Amino acid sequence: MLLKDNAAIEVTALQWVPPFAQGMVKDLRVRWALEEAGLDYRVRLLAGQRPAEYRQDQPFDQVPCFNDGKVQIFESGAILQYIGEQSEALLPRDQLGKFRAIQWMFAALNSIEPFIQFRALLGGPFSDQEWAKPATPTFDHYAQLRLGQLSERLGEKEWLEASRFTVGDLMMVMVLRIAENSGQLADFDNLAAFVKRGEARPAFRQALADHMAAFEQHQPEGVAA
Amino acid sequence: MLLKDNAAIEVTALQWVPPFAQGMVKDLRVRWALEEAGLDYRVRLLAGQRPAEYRQDQPFDQVPCFNDGKVQIFESGAILQYIGEQSEALLPRDQLGKFRAIQWMFAALNSIEPFIQFRALLGGPFSDQEWAKPATPTFDHYAQLRLGQLSERLGEKEWLEASRFTVGDLMMVMVLRIAENSGQLADFDNLAAFVKRGEARPAFRQALADHMAAFEQHQPEGVAA
Repeated sequence: MLLKDNAAIEVTALQWVPPFAQGMVKDLRVRWALEEAGLDYRVRLLAGQRPAEYRQDQPFDQVPCFNDGKVQIFESGAILQYIGEQSEALLPRDQLGKFRAIQWMFAALNSIEPFIQFRALLGGPFSDQEWAKPATPTFDHYAQLRLGQLSERLGEKEWLEASRFTVGDLMMVMVLRIAENSGQLADFDNLAAFVKRGEARPAFRQALADHMAAFEQHQPEGVAA
Repeated sequence: MLLKDNAAIEVTALQWVPPFAQGMVKDLRVRWALEEAGLDYRVRLLAGQRPAEYRQDQPFDQVPCFNDGKVQIFESGAILQYIGEQSEALLPRDQLGKFRAIQWMFAALNSIEPFIQFRALLGGPFSDQEWAKPATPTFDHYAQLRLGQLSERLGEKEWLEASRFTVGDLMMVMVLRIAENSGQLADFDNLAAFVKRGEARPAFRQALADHMAAFEQHQPEGVAA
């Protein structure tokens, strides 16, 4: 438990989101990385309606933002890399190892997430739109293609660069959880097992518990948990 | 002109693509960064049908891959950052400046590109699908929302972090060119001007000329240029 009121590191998160989004909001990526790195942090919880000035910290009005008094940034990929540079547990120190880990973060966020995210939206928030059903085969094709290529590359390895966990695995596990939650990993047992290995890490479990605790505390009256 | 047959840095590119994709393939991002950094490089041109073993270098069967004999990586974001760490012209040396630049690369690739890319596909390769037209207002809404937020943040500044160009601007210009080519910047004069400032840089113009020269050289017989 690294949550400390007077910690130098501040991370923004949402005080409550509907149940389908709990466990999926991107502050969890940063909480997990901080737990792996063993860095104390505090959380600034934001209401669903953020104050207008928050856009000065985050132009897209999202969470998380990170601020340790020296570096203030948004984008979970950039934040994870900054944390990684402070902890060899997340980012190898040799140039090849470091940039392979960074490569997998970009792969997770640009070569995988967009395809599985839009596919998940078609079966979720967009599902009541008349075009969602006819569009599904096309989006499914591209999502399954990318997941198949990733599955082939992972093979029977424990982590993406074989034996050691990096911030690239952390980001890929977080992105693949979107696919798993929307039924897109059915044909890829090794990717599902990779997600489970990530979720079994003590740092993930602590981060998830802290992420969920805020929602319980701010549960709106009269809304199902 | 930094293209040298015996350069240590090798970048993969495609020997030919149809006219609509010329100037848009992602090796251009890397060529531009190398020109800004003043680093010699050579290009390994690949046919449309890549050899099966290329997937060992790039699991998604795309270009570019980067190899300087020390670090072999894919994902243009990771490659640009690696080049940036070798050139202060691209990546500031102070921690805040460095991570702000990295932040904008992730913003370009995860908060902007997916939305404008899918919107561009609906008006392009997907336009003959019956669901493309009814789906357009939804995709247009999200793409315009993100572009509007970015436009507000850029304001009248020359570059995203005010007065100096970084690898974050380079990536954002490259991503916004997708929006510009598909008519998505009509309401955002400052973003269109930002793209023009990027394209006016000598390093971009040299990189684009070299990128296009390969296509002219490998123009298939009987296909319009």
